[in-house]
Amino acid sequence: MNNCISEKMFALTQKNSAVREMFEEGRRLAAIHGAENVYDFSLGNPYFPAPDRVKTAIVEVLEQDEPSLVHGYMPNAGFPDVREALAKSLNHRFDTDFTGGNIIMTAGAAGGLNVALKTLINPDDEVIVLAPFFLEYGNYVSNYGGKLVVVPAHSEDFQPNADEIAKFVTEKTKAIIINSPNNPTGVIYSEDTIKKIAAMLNEMQEKYNHPIFLISDEPYRELAYDGAKVPWLTHYYKNTIVGYSWSKSLSLPGERIGYLVIPSELHDFSLVFDAAGIANRILGFVNAPSLMQRAVAKCLEESTDIASYDANRKLLYNGLQAAGFDCAYPQGAFYMWLKTPCDDKEFVKMAKKYNILVVSGSSFACSGYVRIAYCVGTKTIEGALSGFAALAAELGLRPRD
Amino acid sequence: MNNCISEKMFALTQKNSAVREMFEEGRRLAAIHGAENVYDFSLGNPYFPAPDRVKTAIVEVLEQDEPSLVHGYMPNAGFPDVREALAKSLNHRFDTDFTGGNIIMTAGAAGGLNVALKTLINPDDEVIVLAPFFLEYGNYVSNYGGKLVVVPAHSEDFQPNADEIAKFVTEKTKAIIINSPNNPTGVIYSEDTIKKIAAMLNEMQEKYNHPIFLISDEPYRELAYDGAKVPWLTHYYKNTIVGYSWSKSLSLPGERIGYLVIPSELHDFSLVFDAAGIANRILGFVNAPSLMQRAVAKCLEESTDIASYDANRKLLYNGLQAAGFDCAYPQGAFYMWLKTPCDDKEFVKMAKKYNILVVSGSSFACSGYVRIAYCVGTKTIEGALSGFAALAAELGLRPRD
Repeated sequence: MNNCISEKMFALTQKNSAVREMFEEGRRLAAIHGAENVYDFSLGNPYFPAPDRVKTAIVEVLEQDEPSLVHGYMPNAGFPDVREALAKSLNHRFDTDFTGGNIIMTAGAAGGLNVALKTLINPDDEVIVLAPFFLEYGNYVSNYGGKLVVVPAHSEDFQPNADEIAKFVTEKTKAIIINSPNNPTGVIYSEDTIKKIAAMLNEMQEKYNHPIFLISDEPYRELAYDGAKVPWLTHYYKNTIVGYSWSKSLSLPGERIGYLVIPSELHDFSLVFDAAGIANRILGFVNAPSLMQRAVAKCLEESTDIASYDANRKLLYNGLQAAGFDCAYPQGAFYMWLKTPCDDKEFVKMAKKYNILVVSGSSFACSGYVRIAYCVGTKTIEGALSGFAALAAELGLRPRD
Repeated sequence: MNNCISEKMFALTQKNSAVREMFEEGRRLAAIHGAENVYDFSLGNPYFPAPDRVKTAIVEVLEQDEPSLVHGYMPNAGFPDVREALAKSLNHRFDTDFTGGNIIMTAGAAGGLNVALKTLINPDDEVIVLAPFFLEYGNYVSNYGGKLVVVPAHSEDFQPNADEIAKFVTEKTKAIIINSPNNPTGVIYSEDTIKKIAAMLNEMQEKYNHPIFLISDEPYRELAYDGAKVPWLTHYYKNTIVGYSWSKSLSLPGERIGYLVIPSELHDFSLVFDAAGIANRILGFVNAPSLMQRAVAKCLEESTDIASYDANRKLLYNGLQAAGFDCAYPQGAFYMWLKTPCDDKEFVKMAKKYNILVVSGSSFACSGYVRIAYCVGTKTIEGALSGFAALAAELGLRPRD
């Protein structure tokens, strides 16, 4: 018998093996050298645990609220009181005037992006992404028959250039996904960058006489260092949908809890908001996990251990610099974007000899770089630095003072 | 500007208003008559709360496990130890030999069905459902471009007939979704029914030379009364995928926690299992909520208050019988399927005059009936019985002794 699974999914099972190889390699190395001697910088899995307040908040919810409320159905968009509290917190932080009626609680940012794309996309609509980018966006767009349009990386500092993006906008452009602080580069898009993108999109909306939605994927929003500001996009562009997750900011990646902000000034707001609620339901999410909705509402002022990520950032950056590597000093997120002096896939292989696991830039549609996720224990960085130095020497780089 | 949201989603926003009307009507009536005088049998939202063990299990997990484990990423299929514990529990209950490698933890049954359909369906593949059915199946199938094929209701007792189903199987049939104990009828498909469906499907697989998957949606599995047995389908048909949710059995509908069982003997097992894990990821679920995964693993022997649902069942059934209505005595789930002596939509309207909210059979693709969800407080049933009696009289029915 043949003709078994979905052709799209079959193709993905064949592609997926590259990622699995990385996992397997990590396990293989750990078995040989001991887990403590393998330096795994491949995953964006936060090392620093959720703040204590998350635990006390969950227990409070269980103690104070009725189980039928805590674990029960609510509107597909989420608990009204949770959404109100969140809107208030956003308003306070970003000088906005949202209500709960602008918020849809989602299963993390991945759930939120899928809801947004399901809501907006007709088959063959185009969605623009800016390389380097989280390749999963391609799967999300493909889920709804959309066509991913990749704007190649076009600047050394990885600040997107609106004029470059404009070349890729067509009659079929329905949305653009941006991500700042950025995975994998650690770059924060500046206010100037955002203003220019907004102006360009407004122009293109006029030209093609239909809305172009800016979908902002913001799981790293609070991970900004040295007082760097992350512009709040609804101030700059009317047709913005913000997707957020507490995966990184509260170290809750397994809980699948986040939200979408859909501002009232968005084109066809009511229609989009209603459709997003229905999309949340019919995609099978139904609603964001209920207990975690109620718990995060009590943690809106909490934050992860940003100082420790910052310490990691400095330690790793200084070590890589000293070894002779080139990489931009990241302003946000927890990724270092290192320029490889050789082919990036070759670099990944060479690094493995020093028990160092990193991800090739090709896995973010941008070769010539690797991503080093420093959301690890400080010891992992300390342990890896001599390996990085040896790798630099092997590649003929000269150490810096 | 025009051309805003997805055409499919636009159509759903227009259809959805019927359901919303029901909600609004409930709220309107509650505002006039007081919530305690409105008898809302429209929703499958469990009235009886989660067992206490759920709360202590959650607290135990928070006390005993590292936050990075509890709230962290794990394989997309779920925590290996949770899946092993679950497999063991299934093996014990159903005399099977699953391992964790047969289990994918999902965001409830809705999440699981979407994962299964995403895994299997190519555009234009046909998926068979048996009326009356949960209309959401149509949206799930449509999510992946599949074509829903509805087998009309064909027997008074709502036991499906394999020969009737066979008439709807074609070269394009990829799967059939069944649901027992059934929403909305409360019927449990008998072993004889299952055996005949399995034989028919085996014959059709031979005929068309490709697998036809039986997707079993089982959120009501444990809600079986009078010792009724719910056949475990993997014993009867090789290409069965079981979808489960703790929404009803532990009153956790808001938590979105359930699983898929994909047996090793399934056609192309490894491929299907791998693809399902990827589907779970790319649909944006990523994984089932992590804390709840760990909590339910401690509650595998727990059960909701089945005795109270059973008491509700008897109270409502006897009341409706005495009033003169015809309805089958349900063996499972928490729904009564009442035969309406008039048009079912008309019946729904008339019932509202008595502050009774029920759902028309047309909402399950089977007119001439209404669904009465008795997952309510016993007082709601007691309060509604005089209204039901008055409605019966208005419809010219004779009370029974």
